[in-house]
Amino acid sequence: MQVYLAGPEVFFADAEAVIGRKRELAARYGFTPAVWEPEGWPQDKYEVGLFISAANETMMRQSDLIIANMTPFRGLSTDVGTAYEIGFMCALGRPAFGYSNDGRHYGERAAAEYYHAALVLAPDGMQRAGDGQMVEEHSMADNLMLDGGIAARGGFVVRPAPGIVLPAEDLSQFETCLAAARSGRVAGAR
Amino acid sequence: MQVYLAGPEVFFADAEAVIGRKRELAARYGFTPAVWEPEGWPQDKYEVGLFISAANETMMRQSDLIIANMTPFRGLSTDVGTAYEIGFMCALGRPAFGYSNDGRHYGERAAAEYYHAALVLAPDGMQRAGDGQMVEEHSMADNLMLDGGIAARGGFVVRPAPGIVLPAEDLSQFETCLAAARSGRVAGAR
Repeated sequence: MQVYLAGPEVFFADAEAVIGRKRELAARYGFTPAVWEPEGWPQDKYEVGLFISAANETMMRQSDLIIANMTPFRGLSTDVGTAYEIGFMCALGRPAFGYSNDGRHYGERAAAEYYHAALVLAPDGMQRAGDGQMVEEHSMADNLMLDGGIAARGGFVVRPAPGIVLPAEDLSQFETCLAAARSGRVAGAR
Repeated sequence: MQVYLAGPEVFFADAEAVIGRKRELAARYGFTPAVWEPEGWPQDKYEVGLFISAANETMMRQSDLIIANMTPFRGLSTDVGTAYEIGFMCALGRPAFGYSNDGRHYGERAAAEYYHAALVLAPDGMQRAGDGQMVEEHSMADNLMLDGGIAARGGFVVRPAPGIVLPAEDLSQFETCLAAARSGRVAGAR
């Protein structure tokens, strides 16, 4: 089983080390991580972007499942490249799993880290912020398209206990996700 | 031609008005916007999330193309639900177009709004922030998977001139995108 490991680790200061550890762990659980050995980089930086995008899409098509790191990256939500990749694999009908080191629901994070104020239940039944914007509340780790798409492919999003936020380098949730994906056991779906 | 209009407008305080204006504009350019008339809402809020996710995926499968609002939402990047949807439609091979009201590259936004400091060109040739993290620079509106995926389907991301940031309610970039998608003209790809 080839697994596509999606996540923002390529941007980390210790990218190579973290990615290496994740690949080792995936192998320990019986998965073959998709790996790309790039050759012939383009010169132009826009073309480099297209080159990496095409390579990642090829790897996704060749992979049997995706395990996505949905830990919020530079803000409230999943890295958007990772979100694209979850959608891509879901459209292909491949099993999809996610994990986050952040045990809060999206709305809890939005209140604490973006609005810096409690959200209110508005007369229309929606949870709203001070600026009038609606903040979705579905007891999900992130936007309903991500959690919903993963659930519809038989997967789930592994998270620590409610309210707990683990450091970025902690791989316990990833490992739980690997073990569950390996055994086909559906647990901790919310 | 049925168009799936992706974007974070459902969260806006004036969601209904904005979505209505976007649908009218799409129709003026000859597109039929995908619309959902929900019936039989579930009671449980998690189930509601799954219900909306499934309905959006059905609408995407029924649509001929996607036009995505990639204007940063509650942070540096495209709304993650929208990013999922771009990936979903790209995997289905449907034409994809994006627009953003923010004329800056992702890296320029990250420097200005997240790191609050200039990025540096590190000895390894990467653009890095003070925390050592790499910040991608491909002259793209957002993460390379989004811009790259759209470009690979013949689309492009419409943006205002470099550095210009238009208000959230401005629909000029959306209209440019509709006109270009309508005529099949590829312009302003960067």
